Amino acid sequence: MRTEFHQRLDGLAADLARMCGQAGDEIERATHSLLQADLEAAEVVIGNLDQLTARKNQVEHDAFQLLALQAPVAADLRAVVGALQTAADADRMGGLSAHVARIVRRRHPARVLPEEVDGYFAEMGEVAVALARGAQEVVLSGDVDLAKQILDDDQTMDGLHRHLFTMVLGGDWRHGVGAAVDMVLLGRFYERFADHAVEIARRIIFQTTGSKLTDNDAPAD
Amino acid sequence: MRTEFHQRLDGLAADLARMCGQAGDEIERATHSLLQADLEAAEVVIGNLDQLTARKNQVEHDAFQLLALQAPVAADLRAVVGALQTAADADRMGGLSAHVARIVRRRHPARVLPEEVDGYFAEMGEVAVALARGAQEVVLSGDVDLAKQILDDDQTMDGLHRHLFTMVLGGDWRHGVGAAVDMVLLGRFYERFADHAVEIARRIIFQTTGSKLTDNDAPAD
Repeated sequence: MRTEFHQRLDGLAADLARMCGQAGDEIERATHSLLQADLEAAEVVIGNLDQLTARKNQVEHDAFQLLALQAPVAADLRAVVGALQTAADADRMGGLSAHVARIVRRRHPARVLPEEVDGYFAEMGEVAVALARGAQEVVLSGDVDLAKQILDDDQTMDGLHRHLFTMVLGGDWRHGVGAAVDMVLLGRFYERFADHAVEIARRIIFQTTGSKLTDNDAPAD
Repeated sequence: MRTEFHQRLDGLAADLARMCGQAGDEIERATHSLLQADLEAAEVVIGNLDQLTARKNQVEHDAFQLLALQAPVAADLRAVVGALQTAADADRMGGLSAHVARIVRRRHPARVLPEEVDGYFAEMGEVAVALARGAQEVVLSGDVDLAKQILDDDQTMDGLHRHLFTMVLGGDWRHGVGAAVDMVLLGRFYERFADHAVEIARRIIFQTTGSKLTDNDAPAD
């Protein structure tokens, strides 16, 4: 039978999974709003951010209580501190989804993207959703293989991101400076979304195995 | 006389101050490399990132030890957990400085910026250095007024950042898509650098006063 402490730790993991799930929903909705110039969907993403931040604050509150009242050590301590960090990551994933949605709002009723690049953003959106859903599962299960899958999916995102740059800077770009700037910012938001999922995956690998992956390709902001 | 616990907490604060100081040095050097197309300075910034990350890892290690061995509560607990988060912020500030330097390296021996915008980036660089030095002082002193000054300085950065967008998108831009993309990315790196200093300042305000500022204008990635 689980102790009360471990029951509360399970509760934290469930909250984190919900947060990652919501982050996945938001980037899915934001991508839809981007591809369809759907202002209503964009507003929902922006409006939902407060809810995600409230969840983060609740996780912080619960984690502090656990630290103060139970004084966990070793793996338990890593799990509680990791929960604080994962909640911050998931909250930022929601924030980045809102950044995408704000660009949609700014350009509405015009579309943000030239149609020829829709496919790339549809794919970035799909990868981002998969990463968030993967993170959702990993924080619940602690499944190291699945966590490593997240690191692989991030490579796909990086490849798509690099390709966007090539398109914009390659000399064949016919859509002007404004569209180029939007493309590059959007690309960065999706890439950063993925980086936070990677941070969550690395943390779970560390908590589960006790060893850190190399930080060489860690995200930088 | 301070207890051993508080001596170790002071040691953590000193480490964090050093990290913020280094972040200030790096963004100063990165800005110099940007304005002077100084490849050597850019390489130094990129190379120094490992040292900052090593310092972050050391702070994490020490903070975990303090949590595990001393089981602090209340304000002491907030200070130790806050140290973990502040070390991550300072490390990312270094990462963002390296992002600036990598753009310099990519364009070398060409200059990244059209000369007419040098003044804006010189100013963003100065504000960024001031923010990092402010954060350095605030983590040592816990000075709430100085922390609030950081929030004000961030408004200056936001204004500069918005102005860059206006220049690039205003219709008078004569420097092509590549320069526009570099400008917007650089602007975002400086803005994010400032956001992390703001996070540090907010955290110190919270640790010192026990109350959080509103999260409405919190950074999103």
